[in-house]
Amino acid sequence: MEYIYADYAASAPLMPEALEAMLPWLTENGANASSLHSPGQRARKAIEIARRSAAQALGAGPEEIFFTSGGTESNVCALRGALASGRVRALAVSKIEHHSVLNTVRALEKTGVKAGYMDPDDAGRITPEQAGACADAETLVSVHWANNEIGTVEPIREIARAVHARGGLVHSDCVQAGGHVPLSLEDSGVDLASFSAHKFGGPKGVGILYVRRGTPLAPLMTGGAQERGMRAGTENVAGIVGLAKALEISCAELESESRRLRALRAELEKAVLRIPKVSINVRAQDALPGIANFSFAGILGENIQTVMDNKGVAVSPGSACASGVHEPSHVLAALGIAPALADGAVRVSLGRGTKEEDIPRIAQALAETAAFLRRLEPSWEE
Amino acid sequence: MEYIYADYAASAPLMPEALEAMLPWLTENGANASSLHSPGQRARKAIEIARRSAAQALGAGPEEIFFTSGGTESNVCALRGALASGRVRALAVSKIEHHSVLNTVRALEKTGVKAGYMDPDDAGRITPEQAGACADAETLVSVHWANNEIGTVEPIREIARAVHARGGLVHSDCVQAGGHVPLSLEDSGVDLASFSAHKFGGPKGVGILYVRRGTPLAPLMTGGAQERGMRAGTENVAGIVGLAKALEISCAELESESRRLRALRAELEKAVLRIPKVSINVRAQDALPGIANFSFAGILGENIQTVMDNKGVAVSPGSACASGVHEPSHVLAALGIAPALADGAVRVSLGRGTKEEDIPRIAQALAETAAFLRRLEPSWEE
Repeated sequence: MEYIYADYAASAPLMPEALEAMLPWLTENGANASSLHSPGQRARKAIEIARRSAAQALGAGPEEIFFTSGGTESNVCALRGALASGRVRALAVSKIEHHSVLNTVRALEKTGVKAGYMDPDDAGRITPEQAGACADAETLVSVHWANNEIGTVEPIREIARAVHARGGLVHSDCVQAGGHVPLSLEDSGVDLASFSAHKFGGPKGVGILYVRRGTPLAPLMTGGAQERGMRAGTENVAGIVGLAKALEISCAELESESRRLRALRAELEKAVLRIPKVSINVRAQDALPGIANFSFAGILGENIQTVMDNKGVAVSPGSACASGVHEPSHVLAALGIAPALADGAVRVSLGRGTKEEDIPRIAQALAETAAFLRRLEPSWEE
Repeated sequence: MEYIYADYAASAPLMPEALEAMLPWLTENGANASSLHSPGQRARKAIEIARRSAAQALGAGPEEIFFTSGGTESNVCALRGALASGRVRALAVSKIEHHSVLNTVRALEKTGVKAGYMDPDDAGRITPEQAGACADAETLVSVHWANNEIGTVEPIREIARAVHARGGLVHSDCVQAGGHVPLSLEDSGVDLASFSAHKFGGPKGVGILYVRRGTPLAPLMTGGAQERGMRAGTENVAGIVGLAKALEISCAELESESRRLRALRAELEKAVLRIPKVSINVRAQDALPGIANFSFAGILGENIQTVMDNKGVAVSPGSACASGVHEPSHVLAALGIAPALADGAVRVSLGRGTKEEDIPRIAQALAETAAFLRRLEPSWEE
């Protein structure tokens, strides 16, 4: 039986259309886009076409789009760059941000930067009031557009309005949201935003930092004049072209694909809830369409992942475990989910390649996996 | 007639073997290498195989190799990271470093970091005595392994010894040298070194930061635990695999390819010196094999580039001109080359795809171009 990949939120496989768009820049044309000869200028043109396409997809101006090496770089540049510009002196973030935001804030705190941390409600939401209360004219408030574990979409527009009313700036990590929910940066009011191509079917190693016109930001990557001085380094032409193609397709398919994925997720949730002692951690009605998150009482998410993998299904434990060391999910902890349940969390994330017939197979594999693991723990035998 | 690409030092086209090695990671396997399911672990394994291969090619331990988004990021991380670690408080660099070093030093100077600038001799060489004199126990000395405009190879081993004798640390920007000259990082004594894949036939958007065992360095990209906490961000699996393949091939072919390119360059220089009022700016005997650099008195390098491009040959002006604004080459200026001659500089850089029959065509095109441009400037009519 075909292996089922249900870990789209960790990384969405590269769209074949994106690869096709990239190939000329990996074969025929290897020039540096800063070179003024014709192959260099063709590369330059491809980048600028990609920039316009990405800007249009995100409701931004092309001059507000800066290509980076990915979501982490974009987040780090936004936070460090805003501080280095002198425009802000303090940071305020939600407790359920991605590590590239949280660990950057922690590193900056050690250098004397003031930082505040906002508690989400039990669905993972930050209120505009909270954000406003954290902000003053010297603060950058960073709240992600949508969460990577539980899919919660934040009220960013209202948060931006509340922070701006206090004179602060707003950054939003849109890495999970980009290409998955309708999103207009212009309308949102955010001053800075981050995107990563491989989360919406583009290649790994490329992303976007959005910088609203007039927002002061010091570059992190100092060097050549690329990206109008905001991000030095020879441009990854193929990566940028692939990003734009994947974003264009994601946005074009967004409505139909959202509907399809929501239906598949509902079906999955219905089936998985038939397994004893399972709860659902996605609590927001408007959560990202493709993310399901379950807690299996009494067993560990990483063990579920291993057994599921043996059964031919890729899912993710709710707790980050990249280093092999068990670490509880800071997101589920912040929602007030008990450690025993948080440890048993599994994220199933669906995407473009997910087929209808995959859903019963995933549910069946989860049922078998839970039964198997619980037999190993006698207290869970029925 | 086929277009001749003679701008390898700006970017070497991706080797077909590297693309082939990359393709599985752009098609079959799109997993995140931090995921513990089997596709994730296959991606992880590919990265670790690439790391061992790159380490072997560079005479380093795998634990000393950190993958980054390219040469600029590696340079910025080395300089900023060494300062942020608290190990060093001052920087000393040659005046002919790449902009990603020089502009980073200038940005850091504005934040109060002490910086020294070393004058090269007329061949572009920094002496170990100069480097030693600049160093104390709190200084990071950064000297590139080889220069990108004139190909000069620096006496890095002796520089490292002199700096270490004073208790300082050494960083070397090896972006132009990697894959082009024999290079053992272990033997060299350098503490930090930077590489960029697309300069040796790997893909754009990926590079290496070498950190010698025990060298204190604070990460710039804070976030996830990737690259053992030194460089957060989802790994660019395809890019890393492509880098390793291109580096492996470059090093395997290094001896024969160096011999071949030196012979081609000698032939080119001989032919170009027959053109009136041309001088050679590559003054070091042991310069990088593929780089030729000529000054055409009385005409501008960027005009030569444009006319050459029309004649079907890609070369680079000696002066950086990415933004369309004429800026004299800081390298040629530091060598003491008169502005009038520096303005007329053209870099012809040869590589793996350069064929023997290209050389007379390049020389002929340069002769015609010089004659054409000089006819526009009557004082140069013969």
